[in-house]
Amino acid sequence: MTIATKRQYESLTEERAILYAKGLNFFSEDAELSCSEIGDGNLNYVFHIKESNGDKSLILKQALPYAKVVGESWPLTLKRAIIEANALKKQFEFAADLVPVVYATDEELAITVMEDLSHLKIAREGLIQLEPYPKLSKDIGEYLAQTLFHTSDFALHPFEKKRLVSEFSNPELCKITEELIFTDPFFDHETNDFEPSLRAEVEAIWNNEILKLEVAKLKRSFMTEAEALLHGDLHTGSIFASETETKVIDPEFAFYGPIGFDIGIFLANLIVQSITREAEARNTIVQHIEQTWEVFSSNFSILWKSKGIETYKNTKGFEEYVLEKVFHDTLGFAGCELIRRTIGLAHVKDLDAIADEEQRLDFKKQALQVGEALILKRYDLHSIQAVISLLEENHK
Amino acid sequence: MTIATKRQYESLTEERAILYAKGLNFFSEDAELSCSEIGDGNLNYVFHIKESNGDKSLILKQALPYAKVVGESWPLTLKRAIIEANALKKQFEFAADLVPVVYATDEELAITVMEDLSHLKIAREGLIQLEPYPKLSKDIGEYLAQTLFHTSDFALHPFEKKRLVSEFSNPELCKITEELIFTDPFFDHETNDFEPSLRAEVEAIWNNEILKLEVAKLKRSFMTEAEALLHGDLHTGSIFASETETKVIDPEFAFYGPIGFDIGIFLANLIVQSITREAEARNTIVQHIEQTWEVFSSNFSILWKSKGIETYKNTKGFEEYVLEKVFHDTLGFAGCELIRRTIGLAHVKDLDAIADEEQRLDFKKQALQVGEALILKRYDLHSIQAVISLLEENHK
Repeated sequence: MTIATKRQYESLTEERAILYAKGLNFFSEDAELSCSEIGDGNLNYVFHIKESNGDKSLILKQALPYAKVVGESWPLTLKRAIIEANALKKQFEFAADLVPVVYATDEELAITVMEDLSHLKIAREGLIQLEPYPKLSKDIGEYLAQTLFHTSDFALHPFEKKRLVSEFSNPELCKITEELIFTDPFFDHETNDFEPSLRAEVEAIWNNEILKLEVAKLKRSFMTEAEALLHGDLHTGSIFASETETKVIDPEFAFYGPIGFDIGIFLANLIVQSITREAEARNTIVQHIEQTWEVFSSNFSILWKSKGIETYKNTKGFEEYVLEKVFHDTLGFAGCELIRRTIGLAHVKDLDAIADEEQRLDFKKQALQVGEALILKRYDLHSIQAVISLLEENHK
Repeated sequence: MTIATKRQYESLTEERAILYAKGLNFFSEDAELSCSEIGDGNLNYVFHIKESNGDKSLILKQALPYAKVVGESWPLTLKRAIIEANALKKQFEFAADLVPVVYATDEELAITVMEDLSHLKIAREGLIQLEPYPKLSKDIGEYLAQTLFHTSDFALHPFEKKRLVSEFSNPELCKITEELIFTDPFFDHETNDFEPSLRAEVEAIWNNEILKLEVAKLKRSFMTEAEALLHGDLHTGSIFASETETKVIDPEFAFYGPIGFDIGIFLANLIVQSITREAEARNTIVQHIEQTWEVFSSNFSILWKSKGIETYKNTKGFEEYVLEKVFHDTLGFAGCELIRRTIGLAHVKDLDAIADEEQRLDFKKQALQVGEALILKRYDLHSIQAVISLLEENHK
């Protein structure tokens, strides 16, 4: 007779994280380990554990059963830890160089043990410091093409695709996006957070029925179109980067959604940078914007031809139709991200940390204008170059 | 200590069906029961069980672990029985008068015990015999509005909607539709079945890249757009009807898909009737076509206003956008159904049973022409009256 003791969730301390790491057969038995919690503590603990006299290290990430935002605390499913770990493993199949290696998962304790990437910097921080990141857009374009194509109906047997749709059902985190990106910023909602000087612009958005109709369509697309396994939150704070490496982390919002969503969120965060920069530093970002789409679309196209299983894949115009749809969706989603990062609940340091009030407000107004234009003109823009022209016009 | 005996699936005989029915607490203990298997035996057993000296009766439907089509037999998931029973129960919540009552379900034996509707006739049979069915389109329009609206994001909490998407994941039966409606008829595929005299028309379809592009888009929509819980196979053979009653049965293809699919399949089967009829009998069908859409859309609109939970529901143009999308999708799906019922694997008696070869071939050519026109012109047709004009022109 065996006594099964059901383990219960409890959050770790640094000491307990070390004990946990020792049980993983990762470090040698006599290794002396040190641990520091390096997360922001809002959603997860992130324990950085390393040998005191050796090279080995790892990250032990534990989801917390609540989210803290602007002082409030609300419960949030622990299931997101296993969604994140499974998404990382799925993405690793297709973009092994561009995501951290997952060493172990623990569903009860909501723990993911993974590769230590602390030699890299969060891309948002680096971009704010004007680091050029020469590989960033090529790597992200490749990551997007590989992960999105390979998890779509164009590459997967329909049974496997539908199995993954259920596996990655992620209602609680999707609801956060549905509200904070697609709804609240467009209504006078208590979650919104904007500078008083922007009130005229914000009220113009709340009263813009034409804009809201387009956002409603984008929200509907987000809620119904199970095209591919998305990262779900691919802003520049979810990317580690250096001169030579790019790693996409934190896919806890992963679910089956419209392909353009991941691309749009990433591009929006580059567009914020393009708004705040001048001259050569700005050119670098504009090139990243262009290259992200070019690398994504050309790689998607190569995969379509080499690995596509859809019977209609050679039907004249179908590949173009799919990529055009993704492009228009991308612009619409980018527009929503620009607006919500300026007036919604979750802001970006790229804008908020600018000390000069006049300049900061000017940039925020630009972000709102570009966001609106991308949403409203998404079907009139037929190339990434046309998008860049729109950015240039706005920047004058 | 209890000994759990896991029951294993086995198909029933008429005798065993009676024993099973006696265990249901439905009939009185001393009732004498008679049983006859009334299904077509291709996919399911349908046992009709009734009291010899009483009024009570029921239907005991058991899924078979294989499908027999054109002499071939292939395995088919038994899970479809519980999908069907759960879909009936979900639809009953919103359209209680229009679906059979489910008395009991048995997942292991793939059995659904339900209301006996044998006093009604399958609508396809009745329509072929020119029965007018005055309530048919009003009831089906109502059924469509109630079941599709109430299972959509416009009515459900997002957690409940996403739970239902997973519950009704139905990959095996979806694959049948993906192949037999959206793919095989448009390629020279072995499942196709058409009269040799139609070869020129069929080859024209196979070579029509513009048509195939549009069908590819419709297939993509079917595979990705989780808008509402569909019946999934709403042809006139899935409907019991009389002068005073309408009941929708057999939702074993139920899954979350695009709203227009159910409407389109039903309309296509009415359109087949409109092709084969003349004069007053034809007018009756044309009125059913018009009324199906009018009743669906007006009821959907009433539900939108009275029960809609979407924050954007009052945004100018959003309701119209949603209904227009559904309308265009409806026409495209109807077109695919018309083509596949003429040249694909599964035909309809409405056309195939016409003895006069010249007339039969003429009707089949009309079905192909209308099907193509609906697919190609779906975005140019803006009202059900415009669709009827198209039918009139084709009928001349």
